[in-house]
Amino acid sequence: MDVYERSLARHRECRGKIEVRSRMRLESQDDLSLAYTPGVARPCEAIAADPAAAWDLTWKGRTVAVVSDGSAVLGLGDIGPEAALPVMEGKAALFREFAGVDAVPLVVGAREPDEIVALVRAVAPTFGGINLEDISAPRCFEIEERLQDVGIPVLHDDQHGTAIVLLAALQNAARAVGHSLGSLRVVVNGAGAAGRAITRLLSCAEEASRCVPVGEVLVCDSRGILAPGRERMDASKTELAELTNPDGRTGDLRDALEGAHVFIGVSRGNLIGADDVRRMGADPIVLAMANPEPEIHPDEARRGGAAVVGTGRSDFPNQVNNVLAFPGLFRGALEAKARCFTNEMKLAAVDAIAGAVPEPTAGRILPEAFDRSVAVRVAREVAEAARRDGVCAG
Amino acid sequence: MDVYERSLARHRECRGKIEVRSRMRLESQDDLSLAYTPGVARPCEAIAADPAAAWDLTWKGRTVAVVSDGSAVLGLGDIGPEAALPVMEGKAALFREFAGVDAVPLVVGAREPDEIVALVRAVAPTFGGINLEDISAPRCFEIEERLQDVGIPVLHDDQHGTAIVLLAALQNAARAVGHSLGSLRVVVNGAGAAGRAITRLLSCAEEASRCVPVGEVLVCDSRGILAPGRERMDASKTELAELTNPDGRTGDLRDALEGAHVFIGVSRGNLIGADDVRRMGADPIVLAMANPEPEIHPDEARRGGAAVVGTGRSDFPNQVNNVLAFPGLFRGALEAKARCFTNEMKLAAVDAIAGAVPEPTAGRILPEAFDRSVAVRVAREVAEAARRDGVCAG
Repeated sequence: MDVYERSLARHRECRGKIEVRSRMRLESQDDLSLAYTPGVARPCEAIAADPAAAWDLTWKGRTVAVVSDGSAVLGLGDIGPEAALPVMEGKAALFREFAGVDAVPLVVGAREPDEIVALVRAVAPTFGGINLEDISAPRCFEIEERLQDVGIPVLHDDQHGTAIVLLAALQNAARAVGHSLGSLRVVVNGAGAAGRAITRLLSCAEEASRCVPVGEVLVCDSRGILAPGRERMDASKTELAELTNPDGRTGDLRDALEGAHVFIGVSRGNLIGADDVRRMGADPIVLAMANPEPEIHPDEARRGGAAVVGTGRSDFPNQVNNVLAFPGLFRGALEAKARCFTNEMKLAAVDAIAGAVPEPTAGRILPEAFDRSVAVRVAREVAEAARRDGVCAG
Repeated sequence: MDVYERSLARHRECRGKIEVRSRMRLESQDDLSLAYTPGVARPCEAIAADPAAAWDLTWKGRTVAVVSDGSAVLGLGDIGPEAALPVMEGKAALFREFAGVDAVPLVVGAREPDEIVALVRAVAPTFGGINLEDISAPRCFEIEERLQDVGIPVLHDDQHGTAIVLLAALQNAARAVGHSLGSLRVVVNGAGAAGRAITRLLSCAEEASRCVPVGEVLVCDSRGILAPGRERMDASKTELAELTNPDGRTGDLRDALEGAHVFIGVSRGNLIGADDVRRMGADPIVLAMANPEPEIHPDEARRGGAAVVGTGRSDFPNQVNNVLAFPGLFRGALEAKARCFTNEMKLAAVDAIAGAVPEPTAGRILPEAFDRSVAVRVAREVAEAARRDGVCAG
């Protein structure tokens, strides 16, 4: 059986990937009196008197919700909430395994940004953070932005988790082949959730003390290079066009790749070939992150002369996987009792991930997805950045 | 330290009562490929093709949400969502411990029935059932009723869980002292969520083949006996007045108790004394379920001549606690993949709980809250009733 059929069999056998367990002893009548009535009235009263006490007396301080409407799942697209549940359970399992964070999938049968925003606001008292997941662009931008004042950190992982790991990968890939970030010409293919966040990070669009922009960024969608005045651009793409492409280039993806140093794919599988990589400049870096099939197979990219190849897949080297970021990001935010994610917190995560490989090489630009020290390191740096930024409650 | 301070200490030590764990192995790169990308695409596709597959491939088929706005918590009243979280976590822990049901607390910062209904509808794809909890009357009636078509069973436990255990307790108490149910005069004190559901069950208000009404029911609120035409009655109380009090009695609780065989308290603590019990008929049954303080202390009730005394407390005999009902109720519904709870399913739970004590005595009308065989028995009977009623999906 291939990995897909084995996955199906294992899901059926386990009936899903996560479960809820009691962590308080419930063996005697006395235990029940403490965990439930009458004793439970006392922690309830303590929180009624001081809502911040919920962080220490309930699961709130160690729990996040993974919220999705199933509208943009992996490479599968709009498969709806029920079908998205295996992915959200997977994230929850990873949260727990990698960072000791308890996570609850919430797949929602609602599509209007107003509905999803209202829902997240309503359930926020239950959780210490919200991971938005697999919500299609451009709704994901509006939803995330409108939730920044909800009082707990809200982060759309497809945007920022991906961008953070990608930037860490790019930093180390550039070091491995001797490029400096400031001289790189980068093509981002895909102007959706991840493409936008990556482009904004590469361009230092957000205020942050430690940000170094790359030399040039071109963003492509399925119609080619984003440029001011191009047709068929929504508000988000117009903003990206203004942030990038200083020379006003036009053309398709192949034109964009001409002489570029870096291809970043956040689009769809099997989109480019070895010939496209051959158009690129010296020692090209190919980070092809479409899931489950990358934009170009790693072997094909290497045939085209790629010096460094990374994908989103766990079955090839240089896996650019959000699992390096999101567990530690939320763990750090929870530890600091942060009320939101700042850009400094995200850049702290980039540095922590990149720093986990002190001597990067073409074959190893990122730590293994299974290196459990990474989340610990990310959490520590993120929590410190949160405290520096003064976004900690209590 | 008393039970309250010990409870606070234990909550602080454990940082809440429940946690989310992975139940699929995540030890190798291969495990990650099966649990997450790329393998997870396959179960996603299977569910996209047939949404019912979510019951077997995800946690949906074994998971319920415990939803509360914190507006009517224990005897504490309207303490808000954060402060209600310890109670909801407690329920979740009990679901798991007693019936192997995974349960997720969702405390919500929303009060309008429209908002809560929309929220539950939106998150329903995530869960196999919804336990509404500690939502104040009369909103709880509207919310529960409007959610009956959501496609998974939705039950307000403060109404039906309490009513089910109470009716089981009353059946066995009547047997213990030699009363027949059809001859009993019953006073229900409290016309809120629990009082309404108890009264409707005692009166056979819902269609159900096996229902036997008690002789007479009087319902009292803080202004006295409900009677048609009485002042200050909302829609729910008007309905209860029409369902009960066939002789049109008026007066206060003390008048109602005159000669009654049963006092059912679902109101507030320390409300009646031994003298009130002395007004009652021969061998009175006192079920005083206010939490955390019962309407009358068991010792005081016995001083007044009560033949049988039950309370909601775990530190006295005859604990009338929902824990005997809700774990098995939902477990049975999940096993049958029921789309709703029918009245026959609720009555099956009553019989299963009462039947767990084959020879009831005044000192033992109910099984111990810790008797783990009860939930198994309830689940089996409820699932069978669901199948008989034809409310099973798939």
